[in-house]
Order: sequence, then C-alpha cells, then structure tokens
Amino acid sequence: MVTKLALLGAGRIGKVHARAIATDKRAKLVAVVDAMADAAQAIADSAGCKVSTIDAVIADPDIDGVIICTPTNTHADLIERFAKAGKAIFCEKPIDLDVERARACLEVVRQTGAKVMLGFNRRFDPHFRAVRKAIDEGKIGTVEMVTITSRDPGPPPAEYIKVSGGIFRDMTIHDFDMARFLLGEEIVQVFATGAVLVDKAIGELGDYDSASLILTTKSGRQAMISNSRRASYGYDQRIEVHGSLGSVSAENQRPVSIEIANKEGYTRPPLHDFFMTRYTEAYAAEISAFIDSVEKGAALSPSAEDGLIALQLADAALRSVREGKVVSLAG
Amino acid sequence: MVTKLALLGAGRIGKVHARAIATDKRAKLVAVVDAMADAAQAIADSAGCKVSTIDAVIADPDIDGVIICTPTNTHADLIERFAKAGKAIFCEKPIDLDVERARACLEVVRQTGAKVMLGFNRRFDPHFRAVRKAIDEGKIGTVEMVTITSRDPGPPPAEYIKVSGGIFRDMTIHDFDMARFLLGEEIVQVFATGAVLVDKAIGELGDYDSASLILTTKSGRQAMISNSRRASYGYDQRIEVHGSLGSVSAENQRPVSIEIANKEGYTRPPLHDFFMTRYTEAYAAEISAFIDSVEKGAALSPSAEDGLIALQLADAALRSVREGKVVSLAG
Amino acid sequence: MVTKLALLGAGRIGKVHARAIATDKRAKLVAVVDAMADAAQAIADSAGCKVSTIDAVIADPDIDGVIICTPTNTHADLIERFAKAGKAIFCEKPIDLDVERARACLEVVRQTGAKVMLGFNRRFDPHFRAVRKAIDEGKIGTVEMVTITSRDPGPPPAEYIKVSGGIFRDMTIHDFDMARFLLGEEIVQVFATGAVLVDKAIGELGDYDSASLILTTKSGRQAMISNSRRASYGYDQRIEVHGSLGSVSAENQRPVSIEIANKEGYTRPPLHDFFMTRYTEAYAAEISAFIDSVEKGAALSPSAEDGLIALQLADAALRSVREGKVVSLAG
Amino acid sequence: MVTKLALLGAGRIGKVHARAIATDKRAKLVAVVDAMADAAQAIADSAGCKVSTIDAVIADPDIDGVIICTPTNTHADLIERFAKAGKAIFCEKPIDLDVERARACLEVVRQTGAKVMLGFNRRFDPHFRAVRKAIDEGKIGTVEMVTITSRDPGPPPAEYIKVSGGIFRDMTIHDFDMARFLLGEEIVQVFATGAVLVDKAIGELGDYDSASLILTTKSGRQAMISNSRRASYGYDQRIEVHGSLGSVSAENQRPVSIEIANKEGYTRPPLHDFFMTRYTEAYAAEISAFIDSVEKGAALSPSAEDGLIALQLADAALRSVREGKVVSLAG
Repeated sequence: MVTKLALLGAGRIGKVHARAIATDKRAKLVAVVDAMADAAQAIADSAGCKVSTIDAVIADPDIDGVIICTPTNTHADLIERFAKAGKAIFCEKPIDLDVERARACLEVVRQTGAKVMLGFNRRFDPHFRAVRKAIDEGKIGTVEMVTITSRDPGPPPAEYIKVSGGIFRDMTIHDFDMARFLLGEEIVQVFATGAVLVDKAIGELGDYDSASLILTTKSGRQAMISNSRRASYGYDQRIEVHGSLGSVSAENQRPVSIEIANKEGYTRPPLHDFFMTRYTEAYAAEISAFIDSVEKGAALSPSAEDGLIALQLADAALRSVREGKVVSLAG
Repeated sequence: MVTKLALLGAGRIGKVHARAIATDKRAKLVAVVDAMADAAQAIADSAGCKVSTIDAVIADPDIDGVIICTPTNTHADLIERFAKAGKAIFCEKPIDLDVERARACLEVVRQTGAKVMLGFNRRFDPHFRAVRKAIDEGKIGTVEMVTITSRDPGPPPAEYIKVSGGIFRDMTIHDFDMARFLLGEEIVQVFATGAVLVDKAIGELGDYDSASLILTTKSGRQAMISNSRRASYGYDQRIEVHGSLGSVSAENQRPVSIEIANKEGYTRPPLHDFFMTRYTEAYAAEISAFIDSVEKGAALSPSAEDGLIALQLADAALRSVREGKVVSLAG
Repeated sequence: MVTKLALLGAGRIGKVHARAIATDKRAKLVAVVDAMADAAQAIADSAGCKVSTIDAVIADPDIDGVIICTPTNTHADLIERFAKAGKAIFCEKPIDLDVERARACLEVVRQTGAKVMLGFNRRFDPHFRAVRKAIDEGKIGTVEMVTITSRDPGPPPAEYIKVSGGIFRDMTIHDFDMARFLLGEEIVQVFATGAVLVDKAIGELGDYDSASLILTTKSGRQAMISNSRRASYGYDQRIEVHGSLGSVSAENQRPVSIEIANKEGYTRPPLHDFFMTRYTEAYAAEISAFIDSVEKGAALSPSAEDGLIALQLADAALRSVREGKVVSLAG
Repeated sequence: MVTKLALLGAGRIGKVHARAIATDKRAKLVAVVDAMADAAQAIADSAGCKVSTIDAVIADPDIDGVIICTPTNTHADLIERFAKAGKAIFCEKPIDLDVERARACLEVVRQTGAKVMLGFNRRFDPHFRAVRKAIDEGKIGTVEMVTITSRDPGPPPAEYIKVSGGIFRDMTIHDFDMARFLLGEEIVQVFATGAVLVDKAIGELGDYDSASLILTTKSGRQAMISNSRRASYGYDQRIEVHGSLGSVSAENQRPVSIEIANKEGYTRPPLHDFFMTRYTEAYAAEISAFIDSVEKGAALSPSAEDGLIALQLADAALRSVREGKVVSLAG
C-alpha cells in the first residue's frame, strides 16, 4: 500500500519535499496546492499528479497525509483543518509566531488525536543524528554541556525580517530544538543577549542579528548557543556535546573538500552556502521518516508539542534580552 | 528535445545510471536490455519504460544513445554494433581486457565517427574535479608530482579475480586515468611492483593484491600510485598534486563525519564502505555530462581513446612486474 | 647589562620560570627564596645562584626584578613590599582572592610607580598570540563574538578547592583575561551559570565544577565561556573569534599528533595532560617578555590592573550564579 | 657520574647539540673544537667549557664521548680516530659520501669495538616514534606499505649541491633510514626516477631535484618515497604506514596552528620553514638517547651500520636513475 500525499505550498522547500517523495517507493504525491497556479503546475507535472485545492484535499478520502510548506501565518489554521479531516500532517516550523495561537492549535491536535510532525529538519542530518546516536550508546556518559554554533552566511532582506518573528523565533528556534534533542532534559531557564552588530536595518526593525544564549536544565546541564546573521565563510552549523566520559562533535560540512597549499598556507574552500545545500540529506530523511511513521501508524517525531516548546523558548529568550534578566520556564 | 536513452545491463551499476537518468529532465530512459528478464523489468517499471533487446534498440531510430553496463567481455562488440548504428555510446570501463581487441574496437569507432564516452567516473567526483580545476586555474603552477592512494576495503572473491584481468586492468586502471587527468602530459614510462600480501588465493590465480607504481612523463613529471586490495578503515581514495607554486589534495570522504573524544583519544568514523557510496555524486555527474554532450552534439570525454591508453598502461605495469624492469611506452 | 632576578617560591611553577631564565642570555637568576630550604637549594644549585631571604632580596640593590610564585595569599603583600623597594615585579595570578585587597595593592603599585606584570601566561601562547595578531591585522574585521572553551582534565582535590577562591577566581580568571585580550572592549555585563555535575565534593564546599558564561561589552560584543573541571580527552583549551569579515580559531594541542586508522575509525591521541605541558612555550615566552620589558624600561603587560579587572569579573560571575541574575560592572 | 662530552664542529647543528647537552643533567660539555676559533669560543663561553683540539680530546682520559658535527668529508677519519681512542661517538650523517670509504671506516669500528651512533635525527621525532610504537604494539598488524613524503622548502645553493653527494645521498638518505625504521625488513630492491623540474642549475651539476622511489623487501613489502627540493608551503615531512589491520600516519607540523576563515575559505599557516624548527625535539631527543646509552654502556642506535646501509641504498637509487633500471642489493 502506497501512502498518498498532498503538498500544500509549491515554493522552494515544497519542491525539495516533492523530490523526496518522488524517490521514495512507499509514497506517492497525488495533489499539489498553491495560490500560484504556475508553481503548483510545475511540481504537478514533474510528479505526475494533479493540481488541487485545500478543500478537495480535505474531502479526498484517498489522501493519507499532507505536507504543509505554506507561509507561517497559515500553518496553525491548516494543521487544525487537516487534523479534523483525519490526515497525517507534516508541517514546516513554526506552528505559529504566536505562542497562544500555537497552543490553541495544539489543543485541536490533542482533541482530534491527529498525527503531526514538525519540520525540525536538523534532527535528521546524518551527522547530528550520529551525535545523538553516540550519546544514546553511552559513548560520552551523562550529557553535561551542549554547544551549538549557528550562523547564517548573510543577513536576510528587511522584508523577511519583518515577518520572521525575530531572530529567536526564526533562527534560534532550530537551535532550541537541537539543544532539547541533545540535552536529554527539559530546559527550565533561558538567558539571552542580543545585539545589532551586522546590519542596522535589522536593529531598526526591533530585531537582533547577533545573539548568545545559555539554557539550563533542572539538574544543571547547560547549553550555549551562538547565533549570527553573518558568516563570511559560509553557513556555520556545528554542535558539540560534552559529557562525563567524553565529548562528541559534528563539524561543518562543505560541498568540496580539497585543500590547496602554497606560501600563504593551507586553504580549504568555504562551507555550504546555506541550508538548501547543507541540509539536503536532512530534508530527504525527514520526509522519509514521515512516510515511514505514517505507513506504520507510528507516532510522529518531532511532534507538534516539540514545536510549541521551541516557540516558548524563543519567547523566553526575547523576554530575557528585552528585560535584561534570566527567564524561568513554567514547569 | 529530450535525449532518449537505452540501458544495456540491469545490474548494480545499471540501476545507478537509470536513477541518474530519471532525475535529469533533459533525458529519458526508453528501453532496458538484460539477459535477466526480472532485473530488466524492475528497472523498466521504475523508469516507466519498456524491456527491449539489443537488436530492437539498434533498429529504433528514436533512441539517441545507449548506456552499456554489461559484462566486460561484451563491451567491444556492443560498442562496435552501436557505433555502426549511429548511437551515442556511454560504456563502462574497460573497453576490453585485451589491448588488441580494444584497439580494433577503436578503429571501428574512428571509421564510424561514433561518439563514445568511457565510464571513468572518478573524473566526475566533485572533489577530484575541484583538484583539476585548481590546476587549470594555475593555483599550484606547473604540475610536477602526482600521488594517488587507492585501496579497496577488502579483497574480492576468487571468482571476480579470475575474470577481472588482474589488479592493473581492474583496479589501477582508474588510477592510470586519474594520473593522466592530472599530469597534463602523456606517460612515457611505467615501473610497477606487485606482491601478494593480503590474500594467498589472489596469488594462486597469478594476480597481485598490493602494488606500487611510478609513472613518468616526457618532461620528467612523476606519478606514484599505491594500491591495496585491503584497507580495514574503508575505501581509501586520495589524490595529491604537487606543483611549482604549491600543492592541492583531495582527502578521503566518509558518510558521517562526527568525532568522539574520550580517554582513548579523538576518533572519527571509518570511510565510505566502497565505490557505490563513495562515488554516488560522480556516477550522477558522469551521466549528466554524457547527456549534456549528446544534447549539444559535443565531443565526449573521457573518450574511447582514453580507455585504450589506460589499458596500455595496465599492460605495461603487468609487464614491468613480471619482467622486473621499467617499461617504456611507444610514443 | 644582564638583568638580575630573584625567584620567590621554588615550587612547580617556580622551577619552570627558573628554567626559562636559564635559557635567556639577557637575564640571570641570582637568588631563590622559599620556606622549604631543600626546594630553594635545588633550584639554586641548578641555576648557580644563592638561596636568600625576602629581606635580603629587598635590600640588594643589584637585583632588578623578582618573580613571585608563592602561595596566592602572599601575593599582595609581596607586590607591595617589592613595589616600595623599586623592583620590577612578575607575579603569578591572582593578586589576591579578595578584590578589596587587590585594589589596595594596586593603589600601592600606583603610588610607587612600580612595574608589575601579572602571570596570565595564555596571552603568550604562540597559537593564541597568532589569533590576536590576526585580529590586529584586520583579518577578521571588527570583533563580534568570542568563544572560549576551557576544561581541566580532572577535578582538583578538595584541599585545593578550599583555598582556590572557587572556579571563577581560580579557573575562569584565565578566560576572563583571554576574553578581554580578544574582545578589544571592556566587559560591562556578566551572566554565569554554575552547576555541580562532576564532583559532589566540590559542591559541598560551595563551589561549582561546570560553568557557562556570557560576557558583553558596551557595543554589544559577546564572549561565551564554557568551563568544566573534567575532560576525559585531556586539557581542552580552545578559542575562536568571529568578526565582520571572518573568523579565527586556535584548536587544541596534543603532544603527539599521529593518527591510527582501523575498522573502528581514525583515532588521534588525547590532548596535553595539563597546563605544564600545554603551555610550556607560553611560560617561557612570558618570562622572556618580562625580561625584555625590564631591560628596555618598557611598560609591563598584562598589568596589575589587568589582574584586578579579571578578579572583578570573577566576583561578578559568582554573584551572577548566586543571585541568578545578570551583573553589570561599574564603568 | 656525569658523562663528559666534547663537541667537534661549532656550526649551526653543533650549537643545537651543545644546547641539548646543557639541558641534560646526566652530561656535561667539557670541550669544543672548531677551525673557526670564534665559533668554538662562543659555544665554550655559553657552556662554560674550554676550547680544545682534536688531539687534546683524544688524549684526555676524562672525556667519555664526542659529538661530530664537522663537514662530511672529515666524518670517516674522525670516527676512526676516536674509535681507536675508545671514545663513544655520535656522528652526523653520512659517514662518508663514498660507500667504500664508509665500509672501511666501519671495519675500524668493528675491530675497535667502538660505540658509534649515526645522527638520523628523524627516528627521534616524537610523532615518528609514535608511529613506530603503534607498529610495535601491533596496532596496524603486519606492515605492508610505507609512504614517505619529504620535500625541502626550497632548493639549496649550487655550492651546497656540489659537495652534497647528490639528492639521494644528501636528502633521500634520511628517507631510506626512515623506510628501514618502519618496514621491519631489509630492502632488497630499489627503483628510482629523478628529474630536474625545480632548478636548472641543479641539473647542470648532474643532480636531480625531484625524485620518486619504490623500495621493496624480500617478502614484498613496499615503500614509496616522494622527494622534491621545493615546497612553497614549507618543509613537507610526512609518513604513513599501511598494514594488515590498519594504517598509522604522522602529518605535517606547523609552528602555529590557528585557522582563519573568510570568504576565500579556511586557511591554516604554512609548515615549519625547515629542519631546525621542525626537528627541534628530535635533535634534543637523539642527544639524550646518546647520553643515556653511553651512561648505561648500552648499544647505540641508529648504528654506523645503519649509516652504511642508507648510503648503499642511495648509491643504488643513483644507479637506478642513471641506468633506467631496477637495482637489487646484495643480500
């Protein structure tokens, strides 16, 4: 039995997910929905499926699940509608920029018993997964300190910043989820600093472009996050976990790994230019995991609740910066 | 206009090429041929094309080119038949294990003016290509010394060795081509040592499992090749080019690049397990290059002649080991 | 004119400094003072100088400078006495565990116009110096974020902890100085978390063994420090500075840098076992810099004031942990 | 009982050895001999010993051993004279540029039962020693293939080349010894290519500046050596040993190991500039080993015979290049 999927949103990430479905024999893309008819048609042509509408997808009993890649402000509504329609749901992060809206959405998810997976793609990066596996296998003993370095190659345009929800909800949110994925305990306290060092335009919009954070768990485990909207050397994505018996780390990835030696020294090329090339394997693996869980009727992970918690951490971080104090999370 | 291709040989590498064609919008697989009906059918199903025969492919005017992945002893015959039929040809290396047979085949290729590309996939590895690009851009000045390390993870079964043509025609042949790709001058002299250090069964078949070679060009440029049929740490594939202004190298690749630190030290995982995972991108890129050249009517490279020269170098190496002397190649 | 020096304190670090003086032609050790007669005699024998007393050193007009390696609680007194005696002073960090005592000592230093250098040896590590040089040369543009990882191989005995002044005054103090060395702006705000994850005995003494800190400067530059009293893989000492044009980092050092590859992967040996082997070159270079400055009558750096500021940062960190809030430093 | 040593030759390497003796409590330099009175006096002053003559050293019953750092053409004569005088001898490589002269010298060594150690300093490099230790501990199983890369930063002046004995006796000789140190079997066959790619002046003197060699042992173990008189990126000194269970390698060393990342990529500084800085620890360790063996009356290693064998391999390599054939060594 092939799992039949509909794609909502035919933009850049929608194409990536369509391709992932195309290479997976267990699933088939049967419908594409997008306000931009051309974009929807292009994916439909390449996948050999039809262009459709949200209502039609909801009404179609043959469709098992949906992949939501629409703009952020539609996520919560769509999750609720498809939850009520009994479809399995994969939704890009975040659920919503507003915690209360996300919480309400989660309530619908709980009531309907819907299966929802949030697109925290980095959990599926083979290198980061291997870090987690090493932890699970006891290779480093008890986790004590997590260090996450996450820097974009360059600042986004002001238009993006305006609707992004700010650095913590847009960028750090991935690192909050990664910290939770690695710490093995819930975070109870957040401290964040934020500064405008890269682009004044970002500051004028009330946002930050450089941030440092410390997260702590109940037993005292600590995670440090370093964020910047600019890294001349490429998309900087590193994690390191220090434990009682040792340490495990995942270094940066680059598309080409030659080294040129001359009188200036030894030079390796810059890193990947951004997430589309850096996390290619992760995007494919998360869709594969979604298909796998839907096929088996298994629980989806990361869940909608994971999405809510990451959002709460982002809110806490913002409050920490604005109020200049440590913020505790309600247990 | 989509380039229509037929696949001859539905084995492991045939599947890889079929997948590469499937993801390339400029081409379409229209026929699959294999003595094993099931294997052919499986690829045909997945590609949405028909199972066919060699004769039918030859007779079909709509087919622009063929991908030959059949056993080595059929390569020369098939190249000749498709050359006469006016098809563009991609053929896995080698043309034949016998230089004279390969030479005769090349004669037919010349007479028919056929376009033939040999499957020296490593030329399309992104890291090795970047090495060559650095040379072409003058980053290391004049090439002086090339070092190639090429070790299989473990020895093949005796059945494989028997039909392989020996280590130089089977394994080193890739390194001969890579040396030529990087040296920028034709090789005029070959010295090789061969020993049986890994597996006595290989020696009993008259073959070697460990070899060191020095190749020299007319102006004195030198290439060193180190081959072994066993490397406990994975598929060892490295190149380094030293020139008048510097050096460029491509290190080994591994599927997962974490590092675990503990009281034993700092450990990174083993390398790729073999060529199918190590050269995934190279296989896709070579088929893409084939399609590109066929579409544009451009010359194919690496050519059938590149295939013949690599074979001649393999023969020279074998003679060098057997006679214990340096072997010069006819200019 | 050879600079004549006296050594106060003939313990482990005293021996290191005596050796550094012995290999420097510009200076000569002429007196050693220690309550332990045997220890003093051993160094005196090897240096070819006499065992002496503090009073005698003060009274000797031929002695240009002193190296103070006595227990911490004697530093401030000795600095004051030698300052009044007009000797150039090199003193191991810290000036005192108590900020007020240190401040009073500094007042004497100012009044006497004495030249005092504090033993923040890491500033003289060739790798860290090269990081600073790269910054000074504009290689990374404006400094934005500093990351310091500093982990001891294992927790010290309870006896040491008792007199250490706690992790911030004993261990992090080096990192505070390094952060200042690299940030290029004074730190105005400190946030620290502290936990007992390594050794309960440390917690029972009211100290912490694991700490994460964020330091910020007026313009928003950020430094993150990660401290642990345990690292199974050796003495973990790394710095990284991210700026507007790039990043510069100094990785860990190891005494032997081979790599063994086998079916388990690729393994390099553990790091240096602790500061005596890790910072060998730094210890020699700081004494050389002291001799150099004394000879030339130049200002000494890092200064007593640098010592005081590091101590104030340590106090701020402790307050931050204890009160669970951000601590601002008086401008 | 302190071992009393005399130094013959007060040049660059003589100074290095004098310094090594000065830091070793078990030995004392008591005499320095050099035709250049100033050079001898400088070392004597710094070591606190006297300037002397060869005859006086021979006649002095208090002197236990000599360190010979005089020009190559005096080595054999001095070894013979000090051997007859019953002194322990450390002599820089080579014994002589002429194999017959070296053989005759060795005969005197044998007859007198003198203890002679040859200055193959690289055996004492901590990284290379760790490679050998890993082999001895069985970490890589049976040794199969050794790869040595050895490149000078730049070509020496013509005056040096003239008296050097050529690249194989001057430069490769260290690699021959290293190959023997690592192979664990005697070399029975040598193949070498030589070319002039770097400096025509070297070719005009009948020498080569670029060479590739393959050495084989009786059981088929293989060593490859790559030599060049130029490497823009510094003094290139690497070894790698591949065995039945794995591989062990020692990478290049650099004085400063920072990394700068910017839009051009990730750059580490060049390597050490030459042997004086690259092999600092090795020089100290070899003198320490000499002192240790003399003190204990133990056999010296590497021995004069090791020196002779390396020279024979150099001669075989030269013959191989000149005659264009493989050269077998008399068992």
